Amino acid sequence: MQRPIALFTDFGMAGPYLGQMKAVLAKAVPAAPVIDLMADAPAFDPRASAYLLAALVPEMPERCVVLAVVDPGVGGARRPLVAEADGRFLVGPDNGLFEPLLRRAGQARTWEIRWQPQRLSASFHGRDLFAPIAARLARGDSPEAAGCEAVEPPRLPHWPDDLAEIVYVDHYGNAMTGLRADAVPGTARLRVGEQVLACADTFSAVAPGRAFWYRNSVGLVEIAVNRGRAADALPGLSVGSAVVLERNPDAAAEQNR
Amino acid sequence: MQRPIALFTDFGMAGPYLGQMKAVLAKAVPAAPVIDLMADAPAFDPRASAYLLAALVPEMPERCVVLAVVDPGVGGARRPLVAEADGRFLVGPDNGLFEPLLRRAGQARTWEIRWQPQRLSASFHGRDLFAPIAARLARGDSPEAAGCEAVEPPRLPHWPDDLAEIVYVDHYGNAMTGLRADAVPGTARLRVGEQVLACADTFSAVAPGRAFWYRNSVGLVEIAVNRGRAADALPGLSVGSAVVLERNPDAAAEQNR
Amino acid sequence: MQRPIALFTDFGMAGPYLGQMKAVLAKAVPAAPVIDLMADAPAFDPRASAYLLAALVPEMPERCVVLAVVDPGVGGARRPLVAEADGRFLVGPDNGLFEPLLRRAGQARTWEIRWQPQRLSASFHGRDLFAPIAARLARGDSPEAAGCEAVEPPRLPHWPDDLAEIVYVDHYGNAMTGLRADAVPGTARLRVGEQVLACADTFSAVAPGRAFWYRNSVGLVEIAVNRGRAADALPGLSVGSAVVLERNPDAAAEQNR
Repeated sequence: MQRPIALFTDFGMAGPYLGQMKAVLAKAVPAAPVIDLMADAPAFDPRASAYLLAALVPEMPERCVVLAVVDPGVGGARRPLVAEADGRFLVGPDNGLFEPLLRRAGQARTWEIRWQPQRLSASFHGRDLFAPIAARLARGDSPEAAGCEAVEPPRLPHWPDDLAEIVYVDHYGNAMTGLRADAVPGTARLRVGEQVLACADTFSAVAPGRAFWYRNSVGLVEIAVNRGRAADALPGLSVGSAVVLERNPDAAAEQNR
Repeated sequence: MQRPIALFTDFGMAGPYLGQMKAVLAKAVPAAPVIDLMADAPAFDPRASAYLLAALVPEMPERCVVLAVVDPGVGGARRPLVAEADGRFLVGPDNGLFEPLLRRAGQARTWEIRWQPQRLSASFHGRDLFAPIAARLARGDSPEAAGCEAVEPPRLPHWPDDLAEIVYVDHYGNAMTGLRADAVPGTARLRVGEQVLACADTFSAVAPGRAFWYRNSVGLVEIAVNRGRAADALPGLSVGSAVVLERNPDAAAEQNR
Repeated sequence: MQRPIALFTDFGMAGPYLGQMKAVLAKAVPAAPVIDLMADAPAFDPRASAYLLAALVPEMPERCVVLAVVDPGVGGARRPLVAEADGRFLVGPDNGLFEPLLRRAGQARTWEIRWQPQRLSASFHGRDLFAPIAARLARGDSPEAAGCEAVEPPRLPHWPDDLAEIVYVDHYGNAMTGLRADAVPGTARLRVGEQVLACADTFSAVAPGRAFWYRNSVGLVEIAVNRGRAADALPGLSVGSAVVLERNPDAAAEQNR
């Protein structure tokens, strides 16, 4: 049984990029299920993408190969990487994209891809380098058999455990942060620009038109407006915008007296 | 042989929602074909979506499971439903989404989903509740075996048999109504705002730039402009806009004299 | 083993069109891999689409069936066609869409589709005519067995071998031309409106914000801006815009003295 392959990229659904990557997979492992996880990861932004990816990967099948490409440095010096985190493989650039995921994993190993394809375009390593390696792993080869060499996990110790920024604005205008809701008490307030938002369990617990934060379906703190678009209602709510968590707002108010 | 699964949602192609639903399907029924029917059904609008869905489902494979989620009441009181209509299964919220389909079906049965997943997020029943049930049906389980209980078909008698509103505006700017063309004589006029449109068989039968209505490829009355975008040419043509059918325009003109 | 099927259309990812075509394929050849090559080919523009398609098809699996529909004349007089080019099948309208591909192929044959479906809508031959034929070819039938008759390859001798126009603007704002980079020396300049662009091997070889041309990952001359969007930086850069290749700019400068 071949491993399923999940695709996480900033290539966009439009255009000929995803299709070419899938053609490589269809040639090599035609029976492997391919899951379009998302193709609109924060463009050119491995850091925001990394915190989003870390929240999404646990939703993928357990033996999945995640082909993750947000790679502004393509053609430059960053290494091509394979990682294994709690049974799932990750394939992509060594630019921090796997950092939060590896940090949170119970078991993690990493390899550098030494294999070189016959054709390596300067701009499309997703098709030429990462997809062929993902296909090898999907059909059951070990990273070593696929031409990878074990390396120390790269680490970016200055990156936070949770990112207090917007990492994604969805179709409905809701804005996800890089903060895991498990680490945030329901009494906490979220400051976004001039506004201070309280927590709600569900949309319907809030008056129409009112902004709030809630634990979203992948466990992240997300900003929403009941029957509205948070991204329109709150000025400046876009990928990269900072949010401020006030864990103990009443005490803060107390101290201010 | 597993049943194919067709996805009809308002989740958007972008973002991580379809992908997570597909991951659930890939885990449970990796060999079932998954058809992205559409992901841009009228957002938060089960009524417009319902008339569109009723026109599209007959195009799906005969033993298909249609996973249909347009669900503004997620987390609220609406029931989760399975329906069987002429051999196809439907899985989704009990908010009218299946009303026209069930009304038109030769044979229809309905079940309420009693099964409860271990994790049920407040905002993503598509992934947590409906997709697992769709997977059970796709692999051949009966609704009862999947934890559903037969119930009387819900009915919304005040909904019309055909909806005289725009239910979808496509990529080319064409606007579909919820009216089945079979029930409309070719001599009928369609009034949209100030304009009155005649029927044409094909685009090329009409002068460039001219608006008309025609029977579209799923049998609905659709408004188009030859070599143009109806949605741009006719003001106010968006999902929810009312249209008026004048079945006997010459007689009407006669009476007005 | 069934042939994989690649989809190249101007239907858009949104809406119910791709899904209906895939439903036809899922009914007929449920085990054939389906590759969404692209759904945003230049709309209503078989000529721009043809030069893009010719660059993309070599990336598809060798025994692939390419279902290619950019068909402004649907319902009119253009013939429905099957072509075989170097082992791959193409299915679509006879409107030039396969012209550059057939011209470049080592081995090419063509057939006219004589088979008539029971239902042939006026506006959706992709679903009713081309997809069923693609499915027959994917499961191993010959064109003759699928109801096609060998014809002389249609030819459009007035079309150029390479198209000096923009044929696609991608998600990142990069603009592909219909010019194959193999035929263009790296010393050549590309004139786009008032600007004259030099070649660069990689994005990072160019100052941020600067426009250049390079050989893209499918071998076409593409216009880009390092850390920017070429389509925004260069006025008038859209599908159909002409570009001028100056193969020997220094000699030209010399002559101008």
